[in-house]
Amino acid sequence: MLVVMKRDATQAEIDQVVARVSELGLTAIPLPGTERTAIGTFGVAAQEAGEQLESMPGVQEIVYVSRPFKLSSREVRAEDTIVRIGGVEVGAGRPVAVMAGPCSVETREQTIATARAVHDAGATVLRGGAYKPSTSPYHFRGLGEPGLAILQEAGRAAGLPVVTEVLTPGDVDLVARHADCLQIGTRNSQNFSLLDAVGETRMPVLLKRGMSGTIEELLLSAEYILAKGNPQVILCERGIRTFEKYTRNTFDVSAIPLLKRLSHLPVIADPSHGTGKWYLVAPVALAAVAAGADGVIIEVHPSPDHALKDGFQSLTFENFAGLMRTLPGVARAVGRPVAAAAAVTA
Amino acid sequence: MLVVMKRDATQAEIDQVVARVSELGLTAIPLPGTERTAIGTFGVAAQEAGEQLESMPGVQEIVYVSRPFKLSSREVRAEDTIVRIGGVEVGAGRPVAVMAGPCSVETREQTIATARAVHDAGATVLRGGAYKPSTSPYHFRGLGEPGLAILQEAGRAAGLPVVTEVLTPGDVDLVARHADCLQIGTRNSQNFSLLDAVGETRMPVLLKRGMSGTIEELLLSAEYILAKGNPQVILCERGIRTFEKYTRNTFDVSAIPLLKRLSHLPVIADPSHGTGKWYLVAPVALAAVAAGADGVIIEVHPSPDHALKDGFQSLTFENFAGLMRTLPGVARAVGRPVAAAAAVTA
Amino acid sequence: MLVVMKRDATQAEIDQVVARVSELGLTAIPLPGTERTAIGTFGVAAQEAGEQLESMPGVQEIVYVSRPFKLSSREVRAEDTIVRIGGVEVGAGRPVAVMAGPCSVETREQTIATARAVHDAGATVLRGGAYKPSTSPYHFRGLGEPGLAILQEAGRAAGLPVVTEVLTPGDVDLVARHADCLQIGTRNSQNFSLLDAVGETRMPVLLKRGMSGTIEELLLSAEYILAKGNPQVILCERGIRTFEKYTRNTFDVSAIPLLKRLSHLPVIADPSHGTGKWYLVAPVALAAVAAGADGVIIEVHPSPDHALKDGFQSLTFENFAGLMRTLPGVARAVGRPVAAAAAVTA
Amino acid sequence: MLVVMKRDATQAEIDQVVARVSELGLTAIPLPGTERTAIGTFGVAAQEAGEQLESMPGVQEIVYVSRPFKLSSREVRAEDTIVRIGGVEVGAGRPVAVMAGPCSVETREQTIATARAVHDAGATVLRGGAYKPSTSPYHFRGLGEPGLAILQEAGRAAGLPVVTEVLTPGDVDLVARHADCLQIGTRNSQNFSLLDAVGETRMPVLLKRGMSGTIEELLLSAEYILAKGNPQVILCERGIRTFEKYTRNTFDVSAIPLLKRLSHLPVIADPSHGTGKWYLVAPVALAAVAAGADGVIIEVHPSPDHALKDGFQSLTFENFAGLMRTLPGVARAVGRPVAAAAAVTA
Repeated sequence: MLVVMKRDATQAEIDQVVARVSELGLTAIPLPGTERTAIGTFGVAAQEAGEQLESMPGVQEIVYVSRPFKLSSREVRAEDTIVRIGGVEVGAGRPVAVMAGPCSVETREQTIATARAVHDAGATVLRGGAYKPSTSPYHFRGLGEPGLAILQEAGRAAGLPVVTEVLTPGDVDLVARHADCLQIGTRNSQNFSLLDAVGETRMPVLLKRGMSGTIEELLLSAEYILAKGNPQVILCERGIRTFEKYTRNTFDVSAIPLLKRLSHLPVIADPSHGTGKWYLVAPVALAAVAAGADGVIIEVHPSPDHALKDGFQSLTFENFAGLMRTLPGVARAVGRPVAAAAAVTA
Repeated sequence: MLVVMKRDATQAEIDQVVARVSELGLTAIPLPGTERTAIGTFGVAAQEAGEQLESMPGVQEIVYVSRPFKLSSREVRAEDTIVRIGGVEVGAGRPVAVMAGPCSVETREQTIATARAVHDAGATVLRGGAYKPSTSPYHFRGLGEPGLAILQEAGRAAGLPVVTEVLTPGDVDLVARHADCLQIGTRNSQNFSLLDAVGETRMPVLLKRGMSGTIEELLLSAEYILAKGNPQVILCERGIRTFEKYTRNTFDVSAIPLLKRLSHLPVIADPSHGTGKWYLVAPVALAAVAAGADGVIIEVHPSPDHALKDGFQSLTFENFAGLMRTLPGVARAVGRPVAAAAAVTA
Repeated sequence: MLVVMKRDATQAEIDQVVARVSELGLTAIPLPGTERTAIGTFGVAAQEAGEQLESMPGVQEIVYVSRPFKLSSREVRAEDTIVRIGGVEVGAGRPVAVMAGPCSVETREQTIATARAVHDAGATVLRGGAYKPSTSPYHFRGLGEPGLAILQEAGRAAGLPVVTEVLTPGDVDLVARHADCLQIGTRNSQNFSLLDAVGETRMPVLLKRGMSGTIEELLLSAEYILAKGNPQVILCERGIRTFEKYTRNTFDVSAIPLLKRLSHLPVIADPSHGTGKWYLVAPVALAAVAAGADGVIIEVHPSPDHALKDGFQSLTFENFAGLMRTLPGVARAVGRPVAAAAAVTA
Repeated sequence: MLVVMKRDATQAEIDQVVARVSELGLTAIPLPGTERTAIGTFGVAAQEAGEQLESMPGVQEIVYVSRPFKLSSREVRAEDTIVRIGGVEVGAGRPVAVMAGPCSVETREQTIATARAVHDAGATVLRGGAYKPSTSPYHFRGLGEPGLAILQEAGRAAGLPVVTEVLTPGDVDLVARHADCLQIGTRNSQNFSLLDAVGETRMPVLLKRGMSGTIEELLLSAEYILAKGNPQVILCERGIRTFEKYTRNTFDVSAIPLLKRLSHLPVIADPSHGTGKWYLVAPVALAAVAAGADGVIIEVHPSPDHALKDGFQSLTFENFAGLMRTLPGVARAVGRPVAAAAAVTA
């Protein structure tokens, strides 16, 4: 943290800041310059300390230097973390994990059919929602507990582990009994009570970026989970909100190599929510793999035009299979092994 | 293109629009309905319906017309709603409600001193946080239950009702026992489990806009609370996230008149979080009142440079008192009565 | 500028950076810390220098300290600048300047009628467009030179000086002959050839913020004009582009007090483009004045529903007069004198 | 809600939509037109027309349906356009065009060395700036005309055609004499005088998206050039401005497949400006190719840490060559031929 003094700051003001920095348990080194004085501070500085200093007379601004995330940082842990969902390993150069399934569990038949179809096309994890966050209280909010049971059954039928969203701390135990990986959705990316709750489990967690969340905030949300002792966190880029109106969100493909540089945690991409248009899902999924993603999570529905939620961004079985024929080539081109599972059943 | 007429549009107005549409070389098909006439509208369509249609063969795109919020809409209820926090009425042309207090409850002394100072300067509600959402797990997260007790005591000591944030459904009952109004923070603006939970109380709720939330999403979040039978909702503009780096958020002053046009609910402004800089708080608070806000909520701290959280956006007692000397003149200039309470104790 | 080294940077890497900083003509002061070393640099550092250093081995990031704008900065010039448009003084506590008129000059009659109406309601400057930037090549792009002549005539008829937009360097002389103030629009906020060209005149310039421009970029664009020797620059907040869809732009009211703190130049508000909805113009104009604006610029049209451009954000004569009845009270409440001109003709 | 059918929709498809609309409880009114059938559409409405209607008494809002771009639209021209830069063809499934070179022309030696290096690694076009837009008037603004001559010489020496930016209408002729393709930068994306001027040449134009420009605005800017009779336009995604601070811009990878769906014009990617960090350039370039880009444009510098501008986002010769070894594999994986030139001359 660097305290930049105003051009006309007095020596007394500078002395006061130096004294206050010491009070805060930090070391202060004044740096007189041609235009103004700055005061370097060293030690572990909470943001609050900076905010206090920023209010002092003569201070112009505070410049933060140290990164606020620790456990998720590659500086703290250099080797890639591998997260295990059932038998599937994600991260650390493992084959690209393909998680696919319906946005929402609607019926037993739809879910089992989709699970089998995505498995046969090469997916290694089944995704699906039993609890759905919905902007409007008048829209479909998921089947709830019966949906969890259907999803679990479908996963077993197709031989795929299951990832599904949990919305509130009170549901964590229930969802954990039916799933192999807990998903934290974009609207809960800063629901700290929920992050604490999944941090207390020993289940893998798929953590989505907030829809207006920064990279740093995503890593700090992961930090909540890690700090509770749960190291099994997968980061997920799913698009951010911008002014562009043609797409539902703007998929931030650069977040993938950036997160992998900053953190040792696996990083996957959600091109379904990231674009909101089925015809953009495949090209953006391929782009994510080319950029180094450890996996993708994709919405697939037997009949998207009858889906109860988000049909417009779901792939048909046929379109998903088409994507899965192209994806291994892109993965290989960037030096990534291809999942054996895909090869087996195809 | 679809031209939707107002409910109370006259036949002459409809005829003028039809004529004007023809002048422009377009074909007009008026569609008289039960609620209103539209020219070219096709009924109430849920988003899901549109999304299903959008996936059908041959379809290019769907254009939505109907507003998705109902109970919060001024079309459904024309008269302004008044929300009562303790004895303080907010909305419907009542005096500008001034809610003030520390960002976080830190100590009994700090809280009581602040409560008295803001009361004496003319505030009518005490604000303060016992549960604090914090981006980092390593930062101060509030005193919790002991903080609630301090806040309640400080409110009584100063004769002010209390508003404070609740973070998770499991805490709603506890917080409700200590407070007069429940606050839903920006990060929980789409925490639907929490919205349901406060909707089931009969407590007033202060609902903040999400940091990247649209006006429509804010009204839909209010809709969750209203749909559970709790009509006591205050909407709060608190700044949105943009590319600008000098300010913490961009305070959207136009949201105030826009929300008042779209909805019957009271609308207040939070210039402290909306700007993140203490020296911008007073001008933005005055701007909000000039734009028609029903109230403001402002962070005040006895010694901002020692605050445990958000000190840099807090006003000193002196700066707050200065703001309170200017605010009534602006309120009067836009035809708003001035709070009697302020006059009494000053 | 502070060069932050990586945690594991070697002494050799640190030495290389120190040597390079010296090569760049700056002074380097290494600051060993508990976690990492930082290197303070002092002297005039161009951004390019920082970018060069950022690529060196061992360097983690560069933190900029000095503000890049000079001539527009309040640190360089403490006293408020007054800009004179014809006989009207803007800035430095002068009465709120009200610039009003049609978006586009359409006909002589419309323009003269509007000029008289806005004058009679209290406006002190006539605005109007002869050259209109239009997103589509198929839309109305203004009358061009004949429009300039009409505008000049209308200004004379109503006794008001004129501000109008110039789009390209080749038109600066022509526009300058017909106008009292040159406007640089939002799409040209970083058209540096045009900024140079108006900087070479000695005409007042009304410079709009780019639609995605930061505060710093606005001040740097002003810097282009000032650096050419033209000190007569008015800064104009006109809304920025965000994800919100109800409004055309998000009017950043906090930019007004922020710009006045950072710079000595006058700051005005454009609530017409800033909101894009006529019914939001008056409340946002009043908000801007409450926040300390030195003026407002407002679109007024005799018959907005027949306007060739931007009718939906134009006020009728009646609505403008209504705003002008409320505005002086708000100005007075924040300690601002009221324009004598307004009083005279009202 | 308005359902617009594709041009080639069959009667059966129309009937299905009508039936589905009825199933959903809505009323459908098919409107067969000259170009296509819409279900509930009302003709081609200019934005002005809508804005006029929107101001009329009794009207609530206008919903736009028609796309405002014509000549750039794939509906008007179904076949892909091929743009020719010197002998290099871009678009229509031609090999991925790789344009590379220094951000700015600094010296003859640097430019020729870079031209040769990028040619040898497989680039097919030389890029470089002689006129540089710079946010600050105190920064390097390019060598100007001498820079053009150097660039032309370097292109000839390496056997590469040249693309370079033009900033103002007065320079178009001069730049056109030295270059094979004119670049319109992000800050001039809505400089309509400049778009008109390059539209009047018969030179290929590389048009960058505005830094806060929508997809629709980019296509409308292209429309300006096409409407002047110049069909040789390449669209370029170069990142948009968002709240994220780690990257200079957020590269919108979904814009690539979206633009290719909406328009027949070639689409290329600029990962250098799109990310602003050299270590993100290669992964994002590969992502763009995987998403279907017709080319990439990349900054390369012999010694990025000595570059006068944008060194931090430039690749070294070695890093560029590394990218060029991976890129063909990704191109092949998505069914794209690989440039023969690259293989031949290396």
